[in-house]
Amino acid sequence: MAEKWLIGVDLGGTTTKIAFISYYGEILHKWEIPTDTSDKGKNITINIAKAIDRKLEEVGRSKSEILGIGMGAPGPVNLVNGVVYEAVNLGWQDDYPLKDMLEVETSMPAVVDNDANCAALGEMWKGAGNGAKDLVCVTLGTGVGGGVIANGQIVQGVSGAAGEIGHITSIPEGGAPCNCGKSGCLETIASATGIVRLALAELSANDASGSLKEIYQREGTVTAKDVFDSARGGDKMALHVIDHVAGHLGLALANIANTLNPEKIVLGGGVSRAGDILINPVKEKFLACSFPRVAKSTQVTLATLGNDAGVIGAAWLVRNNPIKQ
Amino acid sequence: MAEKWLIGVDLGGTTTKIAFISYYGEILHKWEIPTDTSDKGKNITINIAKAIDRKLEEVGRSKSEILGIGMGAPGPVNLVNGVVYEAVNLGWQDDYPLKDMLEVETSMPAVVDNDANCAALGEMWKGAGNGAKDLVCVTLGTGVGGGVIANGQIVQGVSGAAGEIGHITSIPEGGAPCNCGKSGCLETIASATGIVRLALAELSANDASGSLKEIYQREGTVTAKDVFDSARGGDKMALHVIDHVAGHLGLALANIANTLNPEKIVLGGGVSRAGDILINPVKEKFLACSFPRVAKSTQVTLATLGNDAGVIGAAWLVRNNPIKQ
Repeated sequence: MAEKWLIGVDLGGTTTKIAFISYYGEILHKWEIPTDTSDKGKNITINIAKAIDRKLEEVGRSKSEILGIGMGAPGPVNLVNGVVYEAVNLGWQDDYPLKDMLEVETSMPAVVDNDANCAALGEMWKGAGNGAKDLVCVTLGTGVGGGVIANGQIVQGVSGAAGEIGHITSIPEGGAPCNCGKSGCLETIASATGIVRLALAELSANDASGSLKEIYQREGTVTAKDVFDSARGGDKMALHVIDHVAGHLGLALANIANTLNPEKIVLGGGVSRAGDILINPVKEKFLACSFPRVAKSTQVTLATLGNDAGVIGAAWLVRNNPIKQ
Repeated sequence: MAEKWLIGVDLGGTTTKIAFISYYGEILHKWEIPTDTSDKGKNITINIAKAIDRKLEEVGRSKSEILGIGMGAPGPVNLVNGVVYEAVNLGWQDDYPLKDMLEVETSMPAVVDNDANCAALGEMWKGAGNGAKDLVCVTLGTGVGGGVIANGQIVQGVSGAAGEIGHITSIPEGGAPCNCGKSGCLETIASATGIVRLALAELSANDASGSLKEIYQREGTVTAKDVFDSARGGDKMALHVIDHVAGHLGLALANIANTLNPEKIVLGGGVSRAGDILINPVKEKFLACSFPRVAKSTQVTLATLGNDAGVIGAAWLVRNNPIKQ
């Protein structure tokens, strides 16, 4: 058992990451293939199967030496039957039987979960979680995603929608519209998209000059990275945007912690790479809004696995298949 | 095994509820004793042991026919060793080894958890949860307490402070001070105490007449029940208070559901007995602030076990001792 390999797959809308991983979580081979969403996504699982077969041949391993395939998919997943709901950006219509299709194409056992949950499991196993059994991961990217682990298990929720931390309502009245249909979601504030939106609003409402304004005048727009870079240089408008973002993010994380008291809240995704300029004010707000015993015991920290969290967490699912337990 | 009885104990600051419960959760005998908090609470476990011995004799059962004692205690509990932290209202100083003391006095195996967690387990097993494995219970009483169940297990958190739903920060700036040391906690708004505070503020700031004002002028104060009764009669000030309470409570519950997508959120405690006048606007706000998939699947509902939830949940702990699994 322990000498068998695990296969982790992180299925994205543009590229699919695949890795052969040891039973102990070490990445042995890692590569990417493009995700072909044409023809209602019917080639996705075929291409993954072909890529795995080719790589197995290349490294001289047989399928009998693989324990199984774990996969993270972008959308709510029914963990029991491996059906993915609402993954329209992959071309799949309605509900897609991903686990079954993957098993048919690869002739190996498969287990499927949501991609944010896989990233959380990866960080728990080999990343910032460092084995913590109560962990919340928040991915700050184009959107805001989340994964919740309690008592060592992913919390799926009754319809697979647990961990929708990006859709915590941060501004109950008059917030910006969100893709989900609501308004005022955390995602409209603490994602890269949200930060750009807030910066552009600030730039058009404020006559003050500064480095962010100069970039805006030169480029016609700004990026989230521009906001963080300008803030590091002391730009007042950029600092004001970050203050707003950190206030809402710190409050949301504190209220998650008041409910779950996890050992760690791990922040990942592109926006988290801003580092101290974002994380320090987030931590300050977090401490101010947390129940004292929670403030003393729950840590806010940065993810450490980067893009590997998804494949490592998917491999963990193979080793610890929650359905077979 | 299945013919043995369980003993459930719900330890409160004033009275202690004790029940003999069948293996299948039926209450067979139920009674109360006063909680003696004098002498640093040293008589608490002795009195419980005596009360159990007397009742066993009365009903003609021996200790060998009891599987064990489960107890809910008011304060954070270390589930592994049964130590209760910060239960100062029971007279106990520092950390109190409740499980050990109870086992010594009764000569039976004991398991101890937080009282709000026990109420949640009770509602899961025999109450509104109806077997749901993902459940959040919120008790709206003098304060606001909570218990979170995910994947069929209580979420304790890293230092036993999970479920501190009353200390979710509802008003990040300028909220009322809370006993916990923070301000703006949900408990300062959605507890009986919070509702009275809000009503008194409204009464002193508002010159309008009405039934609530009449009660205030006659009695010199109002109760939470007065507020709900007046609102049912159409009193504008009372309706305004309830609108404020329901808005904050509905938002907090929605954000818990966006994180955990439980099958049910069960509302219990004295304030929840207000019924539709409170629950309907809470549900309305909950639906408006929930991620669409969550709004469709997570139900907000009223607790059904009343004061029995604690002893039934404590008995569940004996049957499903999370430490022994």
